[in-house]
Amino acid sequence: MRWISQIVLCCTLALAGTARADILDQVTTFTLDNGMDVVVIEDHRAPAVVHMMWYRVGSADEPAGASGVAHFLEHLMFKGTENMEAGEFSQVVAANGGSDNAFTSFDYTAYFQRVAADRLSLMMQMEADRMQNLRLTETDILTEREVIIEERNQRTENDPGALFREQRMAAQYLNHRYGVPIIGWRHEMSVLDMDDVMSFYEAHYAPNNAILIVAGDVTPDEVRALAMEHYAPIPANPAIEARDRVQEPPQQSERRLTFSDPRVAQPYVIRSYLAPERDAGDQREAAALYLLGEVLGGGQTSVLAGKLQFEAQKAVYASAWHAPTRLDDTIFSKVMVPVPGVSLEEAEALLDQAIAEFLEEGVDEAQLDRIKRQLKASQIYARDNVSDLANLFGRALTSGLTVEDIGAWPDLVQSITGEEIIAAAKRTFVRERAVTGYLMQDTPEVSQ
Amino acid sequence: MRWISQIVLCCTLALAGTARADILDQVTTFTLDNGMDVVVIEDHRAPAVVHMMWYRVGSADEPAGASGVAHFLEHLMFKGTENMEAGEFSQVVAANGGSDNAFTSFDYTAYFQRVAADRLSLMMQMEADRMQNLRLTETDILTEREVIIEERNQRTENDPGALFREQRMAAQYLNHRYGVPIIGWRHEMSVLDMDDVMSFYEAHYAPNNAILIVAGDVTPDEVRALAMEHYAPIPANPAIEARDRVQEPPQQSERRLTFSDPRVAQPYVIRSYLAPERDAGDQREAAALYLLGEVLGGGQTSVLAGKLQFEAQKAVYASAWHAPTRLDDTIFSKVMVPVPGVSLEEAEALLDQAIAEFLEEGVDEAQLDRIKRQLKASQIYARDNVSDLANLFGRALTSGLTVEDIGAWPDLVQSITGEEIIAAAKRTFVRERAVTGYLMQDTPEVSQ
Repeated sequence: MRWISQIVLCCTLALAGTARADILDQVTTFTLDNGMDVVVIEDHRAPAVVHMMWYRVGSADEPAGASGVAHFLEHLMFKGTENMEAGEFSQVVAANGGSDNAFTSFDYTAYFQRVAADRLSLMMQMEADRMQNLRLTETDILTEREVIIEERNQRTENDPGALFREQRMAAQYLNHRYGVPIIGWRHEMSVLDMDDVMSFYEAHYAPNNAILIVAGDVTPDEVRALAMEHYAPIPANPAIEARDRVQEPPQQSERRLTFSDPRVAQPYVIRSYLAPERDAGDQREAAALYLLGEVLGGGQTSVLAGKLQFEAQKAVYASAWHAPTRLDDTIFSKVMVPVPGVSLEEAEALLDQAIAEFLEEGVDEAQLDRIKRQLKASQIYARDNVSDLANLFGRALTSGLTVEDIGAWPDLVQSITGEEIIAAAKRTFVRERAVTGYLMQDTPEVSQ
Repeated sequence: MRWISQIVLCCTLALAGTARADILDQVTTFTLDNGMDVVVIEDHRAPAVVHMMWYRVGSADEPAGASGVAHFLEHLMFKGTENMEAGEFSQVVAANGGSDNAFTSFDYTAYFQRVAADRLSLMMQMEADRMQNLRLTETDILTEREVIIEERNQRTENDPGALFREQRMAAQYLNHRYGVPIIGWRHEMSVLDMDDVMSFYEAHYAPNNAILIVAGDVTPDEVRALAMEHYAPIPANPAIEARDRVQEPPQQSERRLTFSDPRVAQPYVIRSYLAPERDAGDQREAAALYLLGEVLGGGQTSVLAGKLQFEAQKAVYASAWHAPTRLDDTIFSKVMVPVPGVSLEEAEALLDQAIAEFLEEGVDEAQLDRIKRQLKASQIYARDNVSDLANLFGRALTSGLTVEDIGAWPDLVQSITGEEIIAAAKRTFVRERAVTGYLMQDTPEVSQ
């Protein structure tokens, strides 16, 4: 039995538009006296629960020079506490027929278990334990550091697309730590030590920086009683303040990158723009950009697929997307993977031309209606999967949004007009805030 | 009477090659028990001294989000102490017939006064006072913050070339704070407060983080006696450790920027490469790159001027230079300013071609000999200006070099061969570590 750590490298877009006001019907929220927020999502169709602890801390909250420490700590949270041996946490979950998991992103770190409903108390007991009693040895640090470095080898060093994305994001953000990879820069990961880990743990892991989400066959009263027993006794950390991160200066110059690697099988051109994210009480621009992504790049009926794959037959793939759920400025991306024989310069020109035509023609109302209907339908399905719902709440709440924002989002998306989408596109598609990248197969260029 | 604050935005290259072993003949160094290093440079031709205090802290040591605080503190050091009124420092210097100045760079912050030799004790008394007794009011913070923001307006916002450089440096450095402007990002400068300033002052201003340089009509014994009186009583700050900054990850993708501004009078193309700086005991590669800059770009007889200005008549200016004296990885730069009618794309291609020809042809030995003779000669002149010599020592010592490194540099430069220069060029001119920028006059591009 093993647990799986996940680095969330890009938003799962399928979820971003699925919530609707009526999902709040099955949701109850309250806050413990020590500041821990609690979200209960009821679903009594099966006798199981998902128990999640979301911390309002991610890689973008790391101190300079300690990149990767958020994810490293996530791994180390499966080591011992004062009360449990290293590895015992996941063993107990498995022995009780459950599964567990954890993941780290820019804005959050989350731990979750899926178990039979009657094991919820045990999960809380163990999660509360490691929130306050983590005990690491130097051996834990050294061995797990090898693990995360190997994870970087697998996910990043062996994948030219991932290396390319790192270099692009470092160029996209001039100041903000979204420009630093979640998994960390290798040279910084390799010197992460006990002090880096424990100071990060002590600074950020506390009930007043956490959101408990319990979803499944459970009532709010049951969750409240168990939370009072296991989590309420943990003292708040008064030193934790609202997150106040380094922000971007004006981006005044388009950046262009070429990344060449012999391992590249499929060259492509990709452009990302610094773009607004969903802000609490102010989600309309992000909603328009989210729909813009769907209109331009949402599958085979999208504008870019239609123009570049089917009409011009110049692309094997063309898409666009917005990652709306972030704490700070996010990005809107467009990509075109040309057919063989079409250069990246041509591909970029074709992509630009397709976008220019779209901005001129406006949004096709029939397509927009179809997208909105699909998003409405997906909300029905979303209610069927409490893990997805719990994830949706966790991501939004750790990205600075409120339960009300989550509830308002579906109707807001439905209310966006084609004109608003075009206006948002024009505001966002400004080259000075863009990074354009070419991923190429080889390195024919004479270096100089 | 007013003092002049300077932000040192690029190395004064003229100095970098001027030191020679025999300049150490006039130099005496010692260290006080509290860790303050002292350098005495004797020059008895005029009854004046330069008194300098160099701190081993610059903008690249600032905490994330507080860009500009090193320079802000430099301004505020002219406010009051427990013993002096705001502005009194410079008034006293002036009343004694002297002048004073201060400057901030990536790696250091320095304060100096030029006075009659018999006023040295007074300078030390005042400098020691503000090293430990700075007292600021909220009004000081608010009013001086307006001053530095106005300074940014003048130096940066009103100068498209300066804005362009900021954007290029932010793209050049993926992780290191050399990518953040010395003067600061405006949005961060505008919220610098008392706590930012005082915590920076307390963390970095102490005798064990300072280098006293006294140059002029003074003996080492006199300096030692006065330093014992004024500086030795200041306690060391044991919390100060060797500087350990965030370093660069591998740079794997060339970045290209275009900066368009209607105020641009003269478009140009510029490329910078991440490049080795002088390291203690390991200066040979930097010396080769320094000479490479001289060979390629050192004036009207340089390779780039010859090929691009005089032979091809395609450039109004073409140059190259290396900034060797930095604590961490520096840059090597090339620029071409085309004649009217030559596009930046053509200019870049011509520049690339000129470099390719140079790498093929090798270094002209007669030109290299001439450059070396000029550097030798400049050392003679350097001894005539104790301010320049003092600056040279201050910059090198705050960039991690030793007095021995400074002494060794001139002979090292003389010993570099043409083959070594070409080899260093080939190691450095790697596009993956380069930023190529176009500064253009207007914004004809349709944004998308």
